[in-house]
Amino acid sequence: MFRSALKQIVTYEAGKPIELVVREYGIKPEDIIKLGSNENPYGTSAQVVESLQKNAHKAFLYPDDSMYELKNALASHFDVESKHIIIGAGSDQIIEFCMQALNHHNAQVLMAKTTFAMYEVYAKLAGVEISKTPSDEHILEEFFQLYQSEKERKHISAVFLCAPNNPLGECLDAAAIEQFIQAVDKDTLVIVDGAYQEFAAYKDKAKAINPKQLIERFSNVIYLGTFSKVYGLGGMRVGYGIASEHIISMLYKVRPPFNVTTLSLQAALIALKDQVFVSECIKNNAIEMARYEAFANEMGFTFIPSYGNFITFLHSHIESSHLCDWLLQNGLIVRNLRSYGLNAFRITIGRAEQNTRVFELIKAYLQIHN
Amino acid sequence: MFRSALKQIVTYEAGKPIELVVREYGIKPEDIIKLGSNENPYGTSAQVVESLQKNAHKAFLYPDDSMYELKNALASHFDVESKHIIIGAGSDQIIEFCMQALNHHNAQVLMAKTTFAMYEVYAKLAGVEISKTPSDEHILEEFFQLYQSEKERKHISAVFLCAPNNPLGECLDAAAIEQFIQAVDKDTLVIVDGAYQEFAAYKDKAKAINPKQLIERFSNVIYLGTFSKVYGLGGMRVGYGIASEHIISMLYKVRPPFNVTTLSLQAALIALKDQVFVSECIKNNAIEMARYEAFANEMGFTFIPSYGNFITFLHSHIESSHLCDWLLQNGLIVRNLRSYGLNAFRITIGRAEQNTRVFELIKAYLQIHN
Repeated sequence: MFRSALKQIVTYEAGKPIELVVREYGIKPEDIIKLGSNENPYGTSAQVVESLQKNAHKAFLYPDDSMYELKNALASHFDVESKHIIIGAGSDQIIEFCMQALNHHNAQVLMAKTTFAMYEVYAKLAGVEISKTPSDEHILEEFFQLYQSEKERKHISAVFLCAPNNPLGECLDAAAIEQFIQAVDKDTLVIVDGAYQEFAAYKDKAKAINPKQLIERFSNVIYLGTFSKVYGLGGMRVGYGIASEHIISMLYKVRPPFNVTTLSLQAALIALKDQVFVSECIKNNAIEMARYEAFANEMGFTFIPSYGNFITFLHSHIESSHLCDWLLQNGLIVRNLRSYGLNAFRITIGRAEQNTRVFELIKAYLQIHN
Repeated sequence: MFRSALKQIVTYEAGKPIELVVREYGIKPEDIIKLGSNENPYGTSAQVVESLQKNAHKAFLYPDDSMYELKNALASHFDVESKHIIIGAGSDQIIEFCMQALNHHNAQVLMAKTTFAMYEVYAKLAGVEISKTPSDEHILEEFFQLYQSEKERKHISAVFLCAPNNPLGECLDAAAIEQFIQAVDKDTLVIVDGAYQEFAAYKDKAKAINPKQLIERFSNVIYLGTFSKVYGLGGMRVGYGIASEHIISMLYKVRPPFNVTTLSLQAALIALKDQVFVSECIKNNAIEMARYEAFANEMGFTFIPSYGNFITFLHSHIESSHLCDWLLQNGLIVRNLRSYGLNAFRITIGRAEQNTRVFELIKAYLQIHN
């Protein structure tokens, strides 16, 4: 009855929710620190919460499927036009649209060895072959080489560039990304995933991608952004794609109607306006990131300098699965990267007091188990 | 760059939102009556609104992707097990999962001539051929005949039965549906869409489908339900499918993670508990439906006796597009069925005072234009 291709698909393992830790370990919700899903540890902006409360009674009304207001607000924010924007249930859904809409006949998609897991999931669902660069992190030369070598035998329908890269943290320079797009054929879609761009742009201007400039220069690029990270709306599922009018119109063909909820559209609209909240979160993230780097150096962890709101620790003497399980039993949720084939773990940069607790717990683990 | 199949796909035309009428006709939002999308005219239950307000601050947290609580609540409501349930962003998304997951090699899907537009949209996206019964309404004999004749040349991967049928309103008996499933091959998935079942079951017990009984008797059926209609959560996008463990596990393979928002899960959980609200809405719907039938008889409209929360009027002397445009300019949104190829229009059964206004407006139109 079902497609045989489904056999190859492994269900994506989401970060553990607080509810699960409550159920499985009997820990009180207020004693759990969740730093496993790169949510905004400062929560949702007070203005957004107020707006959600005021609009809760509209839950019975279908969303404005034209997404008129949010598209206009995003267009104004990025200095592009509404017709250059598509809104999805998280930027994940825009990735899904791309994979569904592209012509993958005799094609491959390219991505880094260790990058956002959903690229592979949606590529497999679309039945397209995947090729990965040899290194875990994004190395532009490897992308060039892979593109050239694979192009000889296959059409390359899409290339994923995650900048900054989740779950590792490194980030390609904006100029390097443009250099790459310049070099690929015009019928290859380059998907630039900027889910954590706000953090990267603050840390280093060379990483700051300008979507307007990108789509003015290239007809074969889509820039992805999200409200799930610095905008503090992970639970509301709102992301967006910015691209040429032609690309947007093709993606619209595979978009289900009402793909973003009424309250999510409202929340995103207010979140976009509250740039004071966004700035504070970004600044706090940088301050706390420095503490993680100092802690890693102190404890002998190797880490990847991160341009996001998370940091990945590697340690040759520790089994990351064992550490992550122990932390979980002690009420701290971090992301084990074993499922990515790495003996490493990723921690979302939390609030100051949460991070202090993280350091205490990891130290305690090392004292017990080393 | 894109699939050529996309050319055939016409973007779904959603019911017009209030915001659009405000923008296009300059009518104040409070003067607009929206009876075009079969939303619950009694709004969202007060308990749900309160719960949304209390939980608004959780918008930054990704949803519990196991949907543990809502799945358990639905399992208990329908007396099935959690493993028999999948939850989607509206029942639309479960339709999408079915179309994506099924093996459509050399296949067709069958449906009534005039039924929920998304069946065709998702079937086309999956690249599968569609065959429709000759009559607009669901006539079981036609489904039998179509199934037998098409089976000779093609595999039938799925059959859609919409009970009650949106946008027309007729409803197959539950026993007739079972009779049909009994007759089809075990590798044909029968998709029973019960989006309006709560209204039908109240009006006539013979229409009441028991999902538990259905999945106990048949391994090749999925029952779809939604929180968008009587549960008053159209804007929150929550629907569900009930089927055998095997079917659910296959659909899970194509489900994107976090496909339902944190607040939507919460809202649906509370909505399911507030059965007092649900009962009142159903009773009021029946009372107001009787007024529409009387009005239709009085004015010489032909109508299809409806088992949903809407009624479809046909009138040989009226051009439905002209009437619907005129009503729109006067602040009343109904659904023109021209896009379904019918000279007819569908009205959601509103609150008493809304319906009185509908009758006044239609009378005024007839006086001016007849």
